[in-house]
Amino acid sequence: MKKGYFISFEGVDGSGKSTQIKKLETFFFNKGYQVVLTREPGGTKIGEKIRDIILDTSNEKMTYMTEALLYAASRAQHVEQIIGPAIEAGKIVICDRFVDSSVAYQGYGRKLGKCINVINGYAVNGYMPDMTFLMRVKPDVGSGRIKDRERDRIEMENEDFYKRVYEGYEILEKDFPGRIIGIDASQTIEDIEKTITSHIEYLLRNDR
Amino acid sequence: MKKGYFISFEGVDGSGKSTQIKKLETFFFNKGYQVVLTREPGGTKIGEKIRDIILDTSNEKMTYMTEALLYAASRAQHVEQIIGPAIEAGKIVICDRFVDSSVAYQGYGRKLGKCINVINGYAVNGYMPDMTFLMRVKPDVGSGRIKDRERDRIEMENEDFYKRVYEGYEILEKDFPGRIIGIDASQTIEDIEKTITSHIEYLLRNDR
Repeated sequence: MKKGYFISFEGVDGSGKSTQIKKLETFFFNKGYQVVLTREPGGTKIGEKIRDIILDTSNEKMTYMTEALLYAASRAQHVEQIIGPAIEAGKIVICDRFVDSSVAYQGYGRKLGKCINVINGYAVNGYMPDMTFLMRVKPDVGSGRIKDRERDRIEMENEDFYKRVYEGYEILEKDFPGRIIGIDASQTIEDIEKTITSHIEYLLRNDR
Repeated sequence: MKKGYFISFEGVDGSGKSTQIKKLETFFFNKGYQVVLTREPGGTKIGEKIRDIILDTSNEKMTYMTEALLYAASRAQHVEQIIGPAIEAGKIVICDRFVDSSVAYQGYGRKLGKCINVINGYAVNGYMPDMTFLMRVKPDVGSGRIKDRERDRIEMENEDFYKRVYEGYEILEKDFPGRIIGIDASQTIEDIEKTITSHIEYLLRNDR
């Protein structure tokens, strides 16, 4: 049986990931694919419990390594319970954030470095996205879009943190040019959708 | 300032760790030391929340890697928030279970192997016990002692699992002869106490 595809979306909160994820879901649905939409941290019952601990603003003493290991724990559950089985069953998995988020936020933002790659190597167990769309938006624009609602523990971080996350994503984009597609998120929703669709059509046409 | 000491207790549940921990606390207290008693998983507010997820019997779908990463996350918090600062302040830390539990239960019991050592290397950040007392008890004796109360998710594992944990502890004892002291837990409480005390007196006399 032909395996499915695994697509992830990356970028700071407020960069327009959710909108494009819904549009891509519709695109695949119209082509007759079964689509699984999911997100990190979370995506499973156990993962949502872990997500609650990570984002709870009362856990202000959480160490950076604890945070990184909790993200990885949630990811291991997500991969084994949801992502892996769906891909093996020939479905399309579209995931809002995946391992690149940990590299950008914990590896670069928290300055934990390469241990993030090692820990997450165990967590993903070989399941890496076929294609990743990185919604590129200057940090201040992204945080502007979420300022009207209450911030979670990660969103309360300072500007230097978000600058490092932004740079981390830039480095990732250079390190994985075949997988990570940088998207200028300041374009119109329609233009972004067109770009993403053309990349996906290329993937479906040429892969395997 | 002279650093404190870090003592851990290991062994299956029901092996008499708690009794000996209390006796060792009194021993140190009577010598004028400040003692911090703590336990894993848990030991911190965040760690206790993680502990709840690990031991919750409703989380029966938890993958082995998720479990291992959650233990490590709890440990990273414990080391940075409690154990590390206490040792640096010259106190005695007595911990009910530490990294050897992860190697025995997840590395050997769950057959996850050496990745447990790598992941926990990041979590402990250089803080390893000066001395570890391994309460050696045949698995069936230990589980007999806890059969009168409700079992948590880990305690519901089968006999093969506990056999591997037992063997894992035996291997650890051989791998770290200077740090891990095997104790025959079938002896009387008083005899065990005497053995532990003599080892601790040796440590205080000869270390550093």
